[in-house]
Amino acid sequence: MADRSLVNGLNGEAKRKRKAAAEAQNGTPAEGQLLQKVLDLVGREHLISCPAEAKIVEFKHPKELEALLQLDINPKGMNQTQTEAFMETVVRYSVRTQHPHFYNQFYGSVDEVALAGAWLTDALNTNQITYEVSPVFILMERFVLAKLGSIFGYDQADGIFAPGGSISNLHAMLLARYKLHPEIKQSGIFSLKPLVAFTSDQSHYSIRKAAVTMGLGLDNVVQVKTDSVGRMMPQELKKAVKRAREEGKEPFFVCATCGSTVLGAYDSLEELADICSLEGLWLHADACVGGCAIFSERLKHFLDGIHRADSIAWNPHKMLCVPLQCSVFLTRHKGLLDACHSARASYLFQQDKFYDVSYDVGDKSFQCGRKVDVFKLYFILSVRGLDEIASRIEAAFDAAAYLSEQVALRPNFRQVIPAAQCANTCFWFVPESLRGKEETPEWWEKLGKVAPRVKTRMVQAGTLMIGYQPIENKNLVNFFRMTNTCVPVPTSADMDFVLDEIERLGKDL
Amino acid sequence: MADRSLVNGLNGEAKRKRKAAAEAQNGTPAEGQLLQKVLDLVGREHLISCPAEAKIVEFKHPKELEALLQLDINPKGMNQTQTEAFMETVVRYSVRTQHPHFYNQFYGSVDEVALAGAWLTDALNTNQITYEVSPVFILMERFVLAKLGSIFGYDQADGIFAPGGSISNLHAMLLARYKLHPEIKQSGIFSLKPLVAFTSDQSHYSIRKAAVTMGLGLDNVVQVKTDSVGRMMPQELKKAVKRAREEGKEPFFVCATCGSTVLGAYDSLEELADICSLEGLWLHADACVGGCAIFSERLKHFLDGIHRADSIAWNPHKMLCVPLQCSVFLTRHKGLLDACHSARASYLFQQDKFYDVSYDVGDKSFQCGRKVDVFKLYFILSVRGLDEIASRIEAAFDAAAYLSEQVALRPNFRQVIPAAQCANTCFWFVPESLRGKEETPEWWEKLGKVAPRVKTRMVQAGTLMIGYQPIENKNLVNFFRMTNTCVPVPTSADMDFVLDEIERLGKDL
Repeated sequence: MADRSLVNGLNGEAKRKRKAAAEAQNGTPAEGQLLQKVLDLVGREHLISCPAEAKIVEFKHPKELEALLQLDINPKGMNQTQTEAFMETVVRYSVRTQHPHFYNQFYGSVDEVALAGAWLTDALNTNQITYEVSPVFILMERFVLAKLGSIFGYDQADGIFAPGGSISNLHAMLLARYKLHPEIKQSGIFSLKPLVAFTSDQSHYSIRKAAVTMGLGLDNVVQVKTDSVGRMMPQELKKAVKRAREEGKEPFFVCATCGSTVLGAYDSLEELADICSLEGLWLHADACVGGCAIFSERLKHFLDGIHRADSIAWNPHKMLCVPLQCSVFLTRHKGLLDACHSARASYLFQQDKFYDVSYDVGDKSFQCGRKVDVFKLYFILSVRGLDEIASRIEAAFDAAAYLSEQVALRPNFRQVIPAAQCANTCFWFVPESLRGKEETPEWWEKLGKVAPRVKTRMVQAGTLMIGYQPIENKNLVNFFRMTNTCVPVPTSADMDFVLDEIERLGKDL
Repeated sequence: MADRSLVNGLNGEAKRKRKAAAEAQNGTPAEGQLLQKVLDLVGREHLISCPAEAKIVEFKHPKELEALLQLDINPKGMNQTQTEAFMETVVRYSVRTQHPHFYNQFYGSVDEVALAGAWLTDALNTNQITYEVSPVFILMERFVLAKLGSIFGYDQADGIFAPGGSISNLHAMLLARYKLHPEIKQSGIFSLKPLVAFTSDQSHYSIRKAAVTMGLGLDNVVQVKTDSVGRMMPQELKKAVKRAREEGKEPFFVCATCGSTVLGAYDSLEELADICSLEGLWLHADACVGGCAIFSERLKHFLDGIHRADSIAWNPHKMLCVPLQCSVFLTRHKGLLDACHSARASYLFQQDKFYDVSYDVGDKSFQCGRKVDVFKLYFILSVRGLDEIASRIEAAFDAAAYLSEQVALRPNFRQVIPAAQCANTCFWFVPESLRGKEETPEWWEKLGKVAPRVKTRMVQAGTLMIGYQPIENKNLVNFFRMTNTCVPVPTSADMDFVLDEIERLGKDL
């Protein structure tokens, strides 16, 4: 226990030195040594660039893994040897998301430059709240938001980095509501007609979660029908808006999905923008997955009309391989974030500071402190350069397209939709036992059990990880979804491996 | 631009090697080299343990700093020399929050063990969403939440790591609303009587922001009066609840502040729990700042009754010096987070997986992907040990108490309240020119201008950083607020320096 007499009269530096000496004796590592061990481990375990021969995961069931981890905390702490051993155990049983054949989710390997940005951010440990504590990163955030605004085609842009795409989407819905009814910041929504949001039935579930958080309820999120490849049908949106008005409700928000979670579908922004403009609705582009296309001259047409969206969400922690978390929220309504969220806390946002306090941006969110997420994104963009970024994104899209073509060519596979969209490829594996049979409901039921079984074998073999799921407009029959990211650049050989390996793992099913 | 012919027929590994060789030629660093540079920079710039002689900040106004940073992005990227130089520039103009005399906010230096945890987390880059992708960290999160639940006195605990205290507080209010009216997940709150939340007038502004986000509005957040040291007055809460009911509204939520932002006040949890129990209200303990006291036998009495709170928020990224972000939300209502938030997305939470899917916890939040924030906390607790943690926290509280005593003893200083609370010390500096004068309203007005002027000089000198603010129940006269954290352990010499330095900087005011 700290005793006042222990600290009194001791010079701070001297006490710290004495402490360091004592720690060294106790076997606690000297300053910087533990960080060096992390770096060594990252190198030894190939966490930057993992060879394909490595196992993706040494899978253990929860109870087994609990026994291996030995998480109990000793009140006296750990010595250096135990500390290093524990780090090794953590790495040993963690999934190598950096493995070239980890395609389980839209993240994975990190770009080393972005990782360096993340590490330096951690070490500088500051807060994206006022210029006073974060001068460099405040300017960098302003720069990046303006730059991205201009890349997406906004004349002027405001925005913020959010802890993930769900929260970026929540920001969009909050701004839309505030713009329509600024009085509700004060009085709440209790006396309003129900506010209704519209989003495709293929959109991300965060739109529904945002509506629950905001008190709108799931009944007031209309999931608009999509076409056979998962794009919102504009005529269906029109009808849904009309129906909501007839029911005495107030439509306020349309979410266009740019790269849907499963099928990779891009809604038609131009058509949705026309409807929103006519109906006076906020158009939000959830481009968390597919926003990357904007960097490529060849691919940006998927986002035609995005400059007409009132807001945009894009996640650099997905396809671009910036370490989690990195999500950008942009809006063309300058000042609206601040108006919607500001509380003017006097302990942070003093107006009598000696510098231009318009640089204190922390009040633009419903968060208070915010981790700095901008540096790792800025760093990858500026060090790699926009040309290289564009070429990596094209490679991810191209690999998905190549895989889809191969799926069509191989007898053991079947496309879910006729071509890849975004960096997603969706397909069924049809094992020998199901080939050439009549496709009865029982046949489809059997097919739906194939993906989970192959997935189990993948994980146990540690050679490949791909997600699977059923979706309603594909008869709820499980299929694989491949998601390509930019690091390492996926090759046709990688894509061939995916199909070969699934055939190998599932041939007896 | 990526051309299909470039990737076809090339083996993935071979292509990657060729790329690495090409990069090396272009002056891009070889694998791991950039991370080594980060580590070197951290050492050279003393980012782990900064000497007191270093300047806290090399302050530049925004326009000057913009010119120095040269943020424009070259489409061709940066070479190795430029990359390293840029990292150095970032460090040069960033605030050294790790400086022993940075007391500007409740964060600062990071513990090296926690930083190592953060670095390894970044490198492993995974997502706290399913056991499949994050087996080690899912188990670790469960362990830490259960352990903390038991430390705070819960019989059983559920919880989640959130990106900051504001979102932890939002979780609390969301659960309280859902528990009272589970139907609103479906139907929204439009037809409800206004729901009213109660919190002290010294509580953090995130409570009000949460109410705005949830559609309740600021009118439905009652800021209950506090006593002279900033504690919510239980009788005032009783009256406010009664008044709300008389107005036809529905009280549902009380936030008890445990360590208020400015004064460090601890509300009386036992008294508030009695009221909440009688009135059927959810009691949330916002212990983001003061929750640390639970680790010390000597200090935990400040949190007496916290086991009766329905939920608790605590931020290890504050006093404990875990790198941002690290915030823990706990509740004693097992299963309620999932019931409130779940959306059962089929692409993540398949029920036909081969392992126990109760370990897939991602649906317990309105977020989807969540950065892993648990490892850095687990690591500091387990490596340093709970005894050491307790002693550091005691030292932070003791230093605040010592400073408050010194303030009382020195003629140039005046306490704002009679003793320090939590690790906060609030005081006025009264320069020579204002001493011994009649304390008229003009005198107070002049005093209120002293702190901003001294603060300006601190930042320019780079010797010290402390926050200041006016608060309503101290006549809106700016005063300094010192916040002590656990790393480096603050000493009495440090506290003496604070007062000496303010005297030196402000003697001619």
